[in-house]
Amino acid sequence: VTPSVDAQKYPAPLTAELAELLNGVATATLTAQLQKRGIRNTFFTGLVPIKRGQRLLGTAKTLRYVPMREDLMPTLQVGENAQRRAVETIEAGQVLVIEARNSPEAGTIGDVLSMRALARGATGVITDGCVRDSEAVGRLEIPVYLRSTHGATLNRDHLPLDIDVPIACAGVLVMPGDVIVGDEDGAMLIPAALVDEVARDAAEQELRDAWSFSRVAAGESSVGVFPISAARLPEYEVWKTTQ
Amino acid sequence: VTPSVDAQKYPAPLTAELAELLNGVATATLTAQLQKRGIRNTFFTGLVPIKRGQRLLGTAKTLRYVPMREDLMPTLQVGENAQRRAVETIEAGQVLVIEARNSPEAGTIGDVLSMRALARGATGVITDGCVRDSEAVGRLEIPVYLRSTHGATLNRDHLPLDIDVPIACAGVLVMPGDVIVGDEDGAMLIPAALVDEVARDAAEQELRDAWSFSRVAAGESSVGVFPISAARLPEYEVWKTTQ
Amino acid sequence: VTPSVDAQKYPAPLTAELAELLNGVATATLTAQLQKRGIRNTFFTGLVPIKRGQRLLGTAKTLRYVPMREDLMPTLQVGENAQRRAVETIEAGQVLVIEARNSPEAGTIGDVLSMRALARGATGVITDGCVRDSEAVGRLEIPVYLRSTHGATLNRDHLPLDIDVPIACAGVLVMPGDVIVGDEDGAMLIPAALVDEVARDAAEQELRDAWSFSRVAAGESSVGVFPISAARLPEYEVWKTTQ
Amino acid sequence: VTPSVDAQKYPAPLTAELAELLNGVATATLTAQLQKRGIRNTFFTGLVPIKRGQRLLGTAKTLRYVPMREDLMPTLQVGENAQRRAVETIEAGQVLVIEARNSPEAGTIGDVLSMRALARGATGVITDGCVRDSEAVGRLEIPVYLRSTHGATLNRDHLPLDIDVPIACAGVLVMPGDVIVGDEDGAMLIPAALVDEVARDAAEQELRDAWSFSRVAAGESSVGVFPISAARLPEYEVWKTTQ
Amino acid sequence: VTPSVDAQKYPAPLTAELAELLNGVATATLTAQLQKRGIRNTFFTGLVPIKRGQRLLGTAKTLRYVPMREDLMPTLQVGENAQRRAVETIEAGQVLVIEARNSPEAGTIGDVLSMRALARGATGVITDGCVRDSEAVGRLEIPVYLRSTHGATLNRDHLPLDIDVPIACAGVLVMPGDVIVGDEDGAMLIPAALVDEVARDAAEQELRDAWSFSRVAAGESSVGVFPISAARLPEYEVWKTTQ
Amino acid sequence: VTPSVDAQKYPAPLTAELAELLNGVATATLTAQLQKRGIRNTFFTGLVPIKRGQRLLGTAKTLRYVPMREDLMPTLQVGENAQRRAVETIEAGQVLVIEARNSPEAGTIGDVLSMRALARGATGVITDGCVRDSEAVGRLEIPVYLRSTHGATLNRDHLPLDIDVPIACAGVLVMPGDVIVGDEDGAMLIPAALVDEVARDAAEQELRDAWSFSRVAAGESSVGVFPISAARLPEYEVWKTTQ
Repeated sequence: VTPSVDAQKYPAPLTAELAELLNGVATATLTAQLQKRGIRNTFFTGLVPIKRGQRLLGTAKTLRYVPMREDLMPTLQVGENAQRRAVETIEAGQVLVIEARNSPEAGTIGDVLSMRALARGATGVITDGCVRDSEAVGRLEIPVYLRSTHGATLNRDHLPLDIDVPIACAGVLVMPGDVIVGDEDGAMLIPAALVDEVARDAAEQELRDAWSFSRVAAGESSVGVFPISAARLPEYEVWKTTQ
Repeated sequence: VTPSVDAQKYPAPLTAELAELLNGVATATLTAQLQKRGIRNTFFTGLVPIKRGQRLLGTAKTLRYVPMREDLMPTLQVGENAQRRAVETIEAGQVLVIEARNSPEAGTIGDVLSMRALARGATGVITDGCVRDSEAVGRLEIPVYLRSTHGATLNRDHLPLDIDVPIACAGVLVMPGDVIVGDEDGAMLIPAALVDEVARDAAEQELRDAWSFSRVAAGESSVGVFPISAARLPEYEVWKTTQ
Repeated sequence: VTPSVDAQKYPAPLTAELAELLNGVATATLTAQLQKRGIRNTFFTGLVPIKRGQRLLGTAKTLRYVPMREDLMPTLQVGENAQRRAVETIEAGQVLVIEARNSPEAGTIGDVLSMRALARGATGVITDGCVRDSEAVGRLEIPVYLRSTHGATLNRDHLPLDIDVPIACAGVLVMPGDVIVGDEDGAMLIPAALVDEVARDAAEQELRDAWSFSRVAAGESSVGVFPISAARLPEYEVWKTTQ
Repeated sequence: VTPSVDAQKYPAPLTAELAELLNGVATATLTAQLQKRGIRNTFFTGLVPIKRGQRLLGTAKTLRYVPMREDLMPTLQVGENAQRRAVETIEAGQVLVIEARNSPEAGTIGDVLSMRALARGATGVITDGCVRDSEAVGRLEIPVYLRSTHGATLNRDHLPLDIDVPIACAGVLVMPGDVIVGDEDGAMLIPAALVDEVARDAAEQELRDAWSFSRVAAGESSVGVFPISAARLPEYEVWKTTQ
Repeated sequence: VTPSVDAQKYPAPLTAELAELLNGVATATLTAQLQKRGIRNTFFTGLVPIKRGQRLLGTAKTLRYVPMREDLMPTLQVGENAQRRAVETIEAGQVLVIEARNSPEAGTIGDVLSMRALARGATGVITDGCVRDSEAVGRLEIPVYLRSTHGATLNRDHLPLDIDVPIACAGVLVMPGDVIVGDEDGAMLIPAALVDEVARDAAEQELRDAWSFSRVAAGESSVGVFPISAARLPEYEVWKTTQ
Repeated sequence: VTPSVDAQKYPAPLTAELAELLNGVATATLTAQLQKRGIRNTFFTGLVPIKRGQRLLGTAKTLRYVPMREDLMPTLQVGENAQRRAVETIEAGQVLVIEARNSPEAGTIGDVLSMRALARGATGVITDGCVRDSEAVGRLEIPVYLRSTHGATLNRDHLPLDIDVPIACAGVLVMPGDVIVGDEDGAMLIPAALVDEVARDAAEQELRDAWSFSRVAAGESSVGVFPISAARLPEYEVWKTTQ
């Protein structure tokens, strides 16, 4: 029996508590937390959600494509190739992250294999290339982030090389097991070793920003309010207890 | 009296039967069929549908723009210029396909001439440049594929040169009379001479993919199922008779 | 008390009459009017509305970002930096226009400061960079035009330098006080000194185009109708009195 | 017997007198003269000379490439294809100008056909694609302008379509018979109808600039000297008689 | 003692005979031979030789860079990192081929490590990123192909990940051991398994092209001569015996 | 009398001692020193020297161009415009640094005004746009760095706006008075406040790299030698006294 998405346990380093925290914060807040720690390059620039209103969370299962070389098709494309191995070994709570060298000129995954990943419990797909059959893929209960859509199969530009290795996706180095988060801004990663502290600090930051927003929406100046000055902090702390 | 879209007969090589087949398959399936035949470059990379849920089908009526040269405006822009001739000679079942050198910096068609093409029975517009008045164009009952939207008229970048000649649209060579198909992935062409065999093979492929999808959705491995192995083919054949 | 958007008076050179005229014409019509006057470069190429169905009108309040240089953060980023000064001094009827060198790799504004601008009566935001927290920003009652979305804060790429100076936004020179208009095609500017004549001529052009569209929709050839020939002008003039 | 380059008569509209004038002025001066006449787009942006110190002059013989479509190779590539027809019909004093859609990914001409064009009296080659065998081509006594070099044959990206038609080369509309000029800045065209007046005005401008340069080199301010003020014009006129 | 370049034996699959053949043919001829075999993507598009007149030959030693992630510097950058391992394990007759994701914004190698590779017998460097200290590197007796020059160290954009794995360099899939050839057009690879037949066929092609060139240089039409028609083949065969 | 280049005193913060140090180190070494201090973005990516073998040193005199807007030509282009003011107020030891938004489509300076800058003692020109009359400019005794060459005057794309303000040149924030250095790799800046320590540390680094290079050239492993290990440092210190 295939694991159901609802019943999943996220793989480490995610816990139910961290997952709940992460589902409540914006990718912008998480990205800012990493910037504060001197880690500048974690947001998948240029990738967009396949539909509005989706959120993504899981750990990275990586898949690497390399440029097409026709003489290597017998070696790399046929049979249980890396693309196939990726979707047949992905586990519940994992996100399939594909390196396709940002190519806008070929598909990298379609509806059948996306469905297979979903059926195995995958909680998302990130590709820096294109999606084929995007209407069908968009109907699946799995969040997908992509560069654009294209009708061509992956072999127009790519050969699948390997899985479970470090990859460069949309200019970001992804290590297997990194935590992937997505919302309407796009998707990004949190290094596995930092997910606990980043999730907690981001949740606190999100609350602070909510208070700042409420003050500004009420007509106050942003000065002293965003970020919260020492003078206003007690006010925020009181408000926080009501949330 | 202007031909109505509903009453149209598609021009050759389309027949009612082929049109029905083609309306039932994804551009991704058609593109893959052409790739199998060694024809790699038929999908209009980078063009997007002006609205969700549209499908396009027709034969190519071509229009070529060249870079603006102010000294040639009296020759190429005035009066019954090529853009005008294109929309005034387009016939029922044709798709206006515009070469605009992928420029994101100027419009290539707006609402009035799109309406005129529609009124003459055109079944679509493809431009590798921009659309002006995109809100109004999007309300018309004609599918449009475009690079992006822009307020400037075509003369910011272009002069209309000629119609009914081979063109390069979004990096694809389009011959007048080629069959154009569009869905949510984007739009692509089928060489006129191949439309019959490609439509039939694509329809069969689409069915096979539907079966594969249903098996994977039911929790099966994709191995042996996508593509369908010899062992599973009989099962598919039975299922096919029920569709 | 913060000025409310509904009660605003647009700053000069906008008047209530001009605002009404401008709200009734497409950016494509306005851009074409400026092209007729030999002004080619007024449309913000590549920027898209954050949501469908929005219109924007106001006068430009400019904000200039320059490339990040870490040694200058103490000078340019801290305290009442230029970004902060921009949103805290923006006035009712103004549009915040941000120069971010077309970078797709960092945010330039998020929900709190967008809310602050809105609370002060700003009628729009234009950035040639990215927006953070785009879901929250999209819920605000303020039209926003952007290149794309990104989770990183501005300091990934930018330092805020100055306000109320000429800027280059999406390849367009914007002077403080220029009139900014946006619709679904995108956004553009009208030089302050030309707004009166351009608004009036565009309104007339919009009416003419509406008549042309109605004739073409009724099945007429576009010849003589778009643009309106001398022979058809009387017919248009009669129709115009009925609008 | 093949016409020799030295013995050539340039085809109309070039005359020996105009050719001498044009060989004495910079492409920058010619481009500026066309800008003064409101013609903005005549310089082949992004193309570089294959070697230092070359000058090019001739009239345009055009060749159009379109994107590769494998099903059309039997029609467009074989036998006396358009590329072949171009070099076998080029005449003394003509420049072969190739439209290759600015592709950096394939060759468009190599040493044998460049030699053939030279042997027939061609005075230059302009391609907005790549040159193969660039070392051998660079040794020929024919000036060549190119985007870059590439080992692949044209069929990697292109099919030759037609000759002696208007083309878009490096973003410039080239009509057969336009005058082409090249120096170290790059190459550009002069519309055939304007070559007489542009050549004469450019020659005068070149002289004026030479005087301005001499004054500035002597330590004078550029004010009043570049451009030459009315007060300094007599001085220039005297100097001019000495040149 | 470090192996000297002159005394090297190329590693398999190169032999002295193949090396001599390959040193006598243009990369354009080799690329065309691979295209004939249906292998389209072997030329390193966009890379240029660091100096004129160089030729490169050797087998690929690969080095993969991935995008900078500051939290992984302690893992990937320090000590005997992959860049260091590459130059300290490269062998005589090998070419260091670097994947740097085509970044123009950081160096990938400088003079000291290029010198070390040369001292170990390396016969070339290919990087799809930039070279630092390019003047010093250009003085070394080792051919280098690069995208451009840049002063920043690799850590501005990159972390060194691994060696001796398949890489994507300038859009080409490079397998360790592939044969790399460079001349003034640029550089390309020959799949190891094909080097024998490709070298021999290319040498024959080069001779044929030389005969064609000589005929065209003598004033003949290219028809029947390039490619050589059956009627002219005997003439070529005679000429060939004189070479 | 115009100041002569030879007699110049560099303006602060340059001293004769610092100038001598800086003329002896590579831009790659200086860029690396700034990277060590956390300043990542100081190299003018994509700009190339106009000729081989040049070095540039001076302090930044800035000039800002903005996008052409025809209605503002009477305000910004005529008379003593910003471009003119820049070359007429530049002082001995200064480098003219031009922001032209990286446009490859228009010139930004030509031979006469480059000569004027040189005559006033300027020691270089940096433009992220194009140079006109590049052959003549290249003959001047002034180092120039540029994106490429183009025949069009600046008004094809630009209006000169202002001088002596912070600018973004080739993606780098330049403050008036920053120190500019150029060699064959390209050009970069040193923040004025850091020039003393960076020059000294770079000079020491350059010496260390020279020793490392000499060791590696002699056949040693790079390990322990580059960078110099504690164990080898005494050896370097002895060698250093001989330089």
